[in-house]
Amino acid sequence: MTTELRLGIAGLGTVGMGVLRILREQAGLIESRTGRRITARAVSARNRDKDRGAPLDGLAWEDDPAALAARDDVDLVIEVMGGHEGAARDTVLAAIAAGKDVVTANKALLAHHGHALALAAENAGCVIRYEAAVAGGIPVIKALTEGLAANRITRVMGVMNGTCNYILTRMEATGQGYNALFDECERLGYLEADPNLDVGGIDAAHKLSILSAIAFGTRVDFDAVETEGITAITLEDIRRAGDMGYRIKLLGVAQMTGRGLEQRMSPCLVPAHSPLGQLEGGTNMVVIEGDAVGQIVLQGPGAGAGPTASAVMADVIDIARGIRLPTFGQPATTLREARPARAAVAAPYYLRLMLLDKPGALAKVARILGDEGVSIDRMRQYGHDNTAAPVLIVTHKTTRTALDAAIAAFGNSDVVSGTPVALRIEAV
Amino acid sequence: MTTELRLGIAGLGTVGMGVLRILREQAGLIESRTGRRITARAVSARNRDKDRGAPLDGLAWEDDPAALAARDDVDLVIEVMGGHEGAARDTVLAAIAAGKDVVTANKALLAHHGHALALAAENAGCVIRYEAAVAGGIPVIKALTEGLAANRITRVMGVMNGTCNYILTRMEATGQGYNALFDECERLGYLEADPNLDVGGIDAAHKLSILSAIAFGTRVDFDAVETEGITAITLEDIRRAGDMGYRIKLLGVAQMTGRGLEQRMSPCLVPAHSPLGQLEGGTNMVVIEGDAVGQIVLQGPGAGAGPTASAVMADVIDIARGIRLPTFGQPATTLREARPARAAVAAPYYLRLMLLDKPGALAKVARILGDEGVSIDRMRQYGHDNTAAPVLIVTHKTTRTALDAAIAAFGNSDVVSGTPVALRIEAV
Repeated sequence: MTTELRLGIAGLGTVGMGVLRILREQAGLIESRTGRRITARAVSARNRDKDRGAPLDGLAWEDDPAALAARDDVDLVIEVMGGHEGAARDTVLAAIAAGKDVVTANKALLAHHGHALALAAENAGCVIRYEAAVAGGIPVIKALTEGLAANRITRVMGVMNGTCNYILTRMEATGQGYNALFDECERLGYLEADPNLDVGGIDAAHKLSILSAIAFGTRVDFDAVETEGITAITLEDIRRAGDMGYRIKLLGVAQMTGRGLEQRMSPCLVPAHSPLGQLEGGTNMVVIEGDAVGQIVLQGPGAGAGPTASAVMADVIDIARGIRLPTFGQPATTLREARPARAAVAAPYYLRLMLLDKPGALAKVARILGDEGVSIDRMRQYGHDNTAAPVLIVTHKTTRTALDAAIAAFGNSDVVSGTPVALRIEAV
Repeated sequence: MTTELRLGIAGLGTVGMGVLRILREQAGLIESRTGRRITARAVSARNRDKDRGAPLDGLAWEDDPAALAARDDVDLVIEVMGGHEGAARDTVLAAIAAGKDVVTANKALLAHHGHALALAAENAGCVIRYEAAVAGGIPVIKALTEGLAANRITRVMGVMNGTCNYILTRMEATGQGYNALFDECERLGYLEADPNLDVGGIDAAHKLSILSAIAFGTRVDFDAVETEGITAITLEDIRRAGDMGYRIKLLGVAQMTGRGLEQRMSPCLVPAHSPLGQLEGGTNMVVIEGDAVGQIVLQGPGAGAGPTASAVMADVIDIARGIRLPTFGQPATTLREARPARAAVAAPYYLRLMLLDKPGALAKVARILGDEGVSIDRMRQYGHDNTAAPVLIVTHKTTRTALDAAIAAFGNSDVVSGTPVALRIEAV
């Protein structure tokens, strides 16, 4: 425990450079807290000659990150390249093959290959840590795996994509539409190379699937997350929701039900005065509910060099201190395969549709909903300019399945134009 | 690591019984997460015959908790008796003398004797864990000691006494005065046996002193916390603060300044729309700021059998998993003795006083403030019934020292009646 811990860092983007910065600036502090010197020894990135704003003096360079992972002078491999195939995966596997511990910030990698990687690591006696993969600087993996380990977790919720929350809260604050805010995010560099990872809800769904595995002792199953992005949300939806005391959030919810594991990442209405409803801008929030503890809310920066590097280095410090836990909090061989449950838990829904200006049109919509067992709590038809009028419906508790059947029936009717927007109203 | 972990529980109040309940109901879950059986073997409490609502079958009984700590069939001692002298301290020392790890929920014990106990434990190779001592079910000790260990902590803040926050938010919601709410808390069993521990801010100050030690690598120094309770807060203060966009919270703040370590627990005005300002009822909130991570906010239940037992058991599970850290996150021998700094950081203040109805009285108050270097941002005099009128002043940034000098001068003037109320306006 008193020897030096030598790091190899694969990836020198903002996170990798943030890690180097902490190692440079907080060396003494970290040594006082771990009793060990922690030093970067070798690095790898695509382009050796790029100006990264800080020197790489004294660090060995490897063009191939898998070769970095195998180096004799590297004890622990930090993977901060991103991407769930190719180099990132190869590097983690190379580290495990060499018997080395891994710290990664890569949610896509864990969402797609987390179970296989956990099996491989635990079989080799290595640990994989990934605090930075979920909700940036918030120590949520630690809270769930360790701090709340005496609880049967009943539900995990979260707003875990800062870009989507920025777009939704800025639409409300500025009155600009989705497209204008999307363009602003692009200019500000807030979007992934493939923006659909953000606005399509995929990045946030990756994170939810990881939290689910820890919370419920199940194999990570990203494909089972019902994922819906924010691209269909209009300013009108945000304003109507606001009139009713709600705000729209891209909300992840995971809960174990009698019919299986429900995992969904979708825009939802949450009470404006709840902690989730009050969340502004790029901040992330995770809500964890356990049978003994009740509800715990964790809030903080979900991205950025400093917060992400803080989480990466917390994992490194844990390993330096000799903390060694199974990847998902219990041995990977004991994780169960969960039966996915599609929207098993009923809820009220917000439904917006465009009604064609025909006699009896509203009655027909109401009848279709009734036929599918969806009962109406409130309905309001707004004035219209042309041939169609917006209608806003809040249903009583229903299932997504029943609602989707009604929406399909609207499509076959001759009174509804376009695709209705249906948003769950989540009790938080 | 695969052997059973045998617990001795000293104290069978709500927390001790809550721990037994988790052990009974979640045995399988906890074994799957730790790879070990964790069982209660022996208990101790003052009254053996009391009905505690659950059986103690199969548990050895000790009248003397120190004898419990020394039993051969106990590996780990849980101290949930409370009190910072006598039995609680003796039991922890007996456990350490017997080479056993300790989990405690006792903030008073740690605030008064934390440094000596840490030295003793680390010298004996034992660990002392105390997640339940601060902010109930919120895993804040873990977040600070481990999750944010790569950060130089710049400030720790918190609302950590649920009873005080309940009184303050209920005063606002119901329009009842402090005394009525105090009586309500007494009826509801929300108060400690010595209510001054709650409303005098002492319990919350205990907690703050513990967080300070971890955050700044200093010896816990409860005596250096400037502590002020909520007993002087009136409904009028709450309403005036609300008019200006603030809410009054019993807020703890710890920060390392150029002049030393500032620790204070006092009623403050915080922006109504900040996370701290929005906190309702008995919920606790801790805000941690670090140089890399920025601001992290943790919220959850601060008391109660379930949340407190959840935190106690998280510590037990950590120990079962082989996680062994120094009490305050770095060896006790390396903790520095901090120089206490009294209100070193300047802030605007809210000042309420009763002005006697004399010509030139307001001018005299203004002159006294000016003489002490306190400049006025806003001042308002309200109508009055009798011989004195309430005056409300918001100052520009000033120090508590300057303000206290002015308040002393008011006392020697012939224009101010009674003791003015001065509340810091905290930038959160």
